Amino acid sequence: MNDSTDYEHISEVRVRYAETDQMGVVYHANYLVWCEIGRTDFIRALGRSYADIERDGVTLAVSDAALRFLGSARYDDRVLVHTRLEELRSRGMKFAYRLVHGDTGRTLVTATTSLIALDANGRPARLPTAVVDVLRRAATMGAES
Amino acid sequence: MNDSTDYEHISEVRVRYAETDQMGVVYHANYLVWCEIGRTDFIRALGRSYADIERDGVTLAVSDAALRFLGSARYDDRVLVHTRLEELRSRGMKFAYRLVHGDTGRTLVTATTSLIALDANGRPARLPTAVVDVLRRAATMGAES
Amino acid sequence: MNDSTDYEHISEVRVRYAETDQMGVVYHANYLVWCEIGRTDFIRALGRSYADIERDGVTLAVSDAALRFLGSARYDDRVLVHTRLEELRSRGMKFAYRLVHGDTGRTLVTATTSLIALDANGRPARLPTAVVDVLRRAATMGAES
Amino acid sequence: MNDSTDYEHISEVRVRYAETDQMGVVYHANYLVWCEIGRTDFIRALGRSYADIERDGVTLAVSDAALRFLGSARYDDRVLVHTRLEELRSRGMKFAYRLVHGDTGRTLVTATTSLIALDANGRPARLPTAVVDVLRRAATMGAES
Repeated sequence: MNDSTDYEHISEVRVRYAETDQMGVVYHANYLVWCEIGRTDFIRALGRSYADIERDGVTLAVSDAALRFLGSARYDDRVLVHTRLEELRSRGMKFAYRLVHGDTGRTLVTATTSLIALDANGRPARLPTAVVDVLRRAATMGAES
Repeated sequence: MNDSTDYEHISEVRVRYAETDQMGVVYHANYLVWCEIGRTDFIRALGRSYADIERDGVTLAVSDAALRFLGSARYDDRVLVHTRLEELRSRGMKFAYRLVHGDTGRTLVTATTSLIALDANGRPARLPTAVVDVLRRAATMGAES
Repeated sequence: MNDSTDYEHISEVRVRYAETDQMGVVYHANYLVWCEIGRTDFIRALGRSYADIERDGVTLAVSDAALRFLGSARYDDRVLVHTRLEELRSRGMKFAYRLVHGDTGRTLVTATTSLIALDANGRPARLPTAVVDVLRRAATMGAES
Repeated sequence: MNDSTDYEHISEVRVRYAETDQMGVVYHANYLVWCEIGRTDFIRALGRSYADIERDGVTLAVSDAALRFLGSARYDDRVLVHTRLEELRSRGMKFAYRLVHGDTGRTLVTATTSLIALDANGRPARLPTAVVDVLRRAATMGAES
């Protein structure tokens, strides 16, 4: 069940004033928020919302995150979040991201986040079958494209 | 039960880098977050934490907020949040704030927020007696000081 | 130069996980951030970006904000930000907002923010003619529609 | 100039309501903000503020960040940020963090962030001598303690 795929979803965010800092660029922690938008959109594009998953009684908690900052976005810039499923396991998954400046095409940040499924009591749990099926679809789409 | 008091609690925050924006000053919405710290500390100083209140099955939701921005704080500045209970009703309360620069003493923001008690279903509820008693204490302290 | 208009711009935001709090709804300060998105889009729709304005050497600082919270949005909800120019003066302007749930059409928040123009030294300044012209256009559009 | 030290600085933060998410715990990106507080306090404890550094014409930009999430903090919890200088180079440095629950002593997050010095034009620069001297002091303190 260890599937890496080439399928990627692209989300677009526009830099908010609130997301800049006094250096005149996006405050670095915000990229983690955009990664969350990326994987949420990724899952939604496969036909299932993350809100659905939580209604199934499972939450996905970030267990690991790694970010490399290569460039910086500024206020009002469009940023494209390329999201890819790097790994799918019975109790979690790993997403890889590439955040790209919407106009220059320059890579601003590369990142990965690992998520683990937790039950209502906050204990590790198996991913619901519906979620696994949906994410498997990404693997197939990757193979096809 | 309409009690205004002179008692005020003073909280201190130090401006985080994340809270600045590209204008080089604190992004305005953050003052609302600091007001929340002010009223939380106000209640805690009276011997009851806001977390306690939620454990009583009641949440306090902000129903109205008004802010006047007079000056601006910068990164690493200390800001003093003066919090005062302006009104206490059976189903809510109103806090008034004065946010002051820690070094210059200049008033940066004045604000008020009204809060209403909500039960577990999100419906307006009476404030728990324990909370009312605690807040009444503020009125007494104001009268005494 | 005191122009109120009926023209309104509608922006859409989707609630981010980061914007929720433990009450399960959007943390109230985030609505101020969305208002900023609303007025930014309003200005952009008239053919001028807020980033342009800053390049003209003028920043717009929020001097007053007032919010009434009537309902709450949840994670992944679409929220429509209706923005209207309520007042235009030589040194500032006032925007009025109505934030509406994208699916139910329920009004969640009504708000106003006043902004004043500041020069590079942080002192009150006249709005650049280009900005005034652009905002006047909103008044005309309101009259025509 | 590659100095790792045992000296660590401990900062305390209290979880704000704004920092929780609908899972009822701290939203993960906030730990990066607390790491920033940790290193800022670390530098200040050595007798130099980060604001000083920026006034020297150098900014420190995060180039890499890695976080491991082991537990979660809740609203109103006290969290201790243990910050240690892991590496000091001519053009940057690396900090290591351990974020610990204030009451239970449980480790919530371990993290590292690498920072690089940038000049006013955003280009890599050498760390000002004053900064290097100050950070060297941490190495000495580690050796002594």
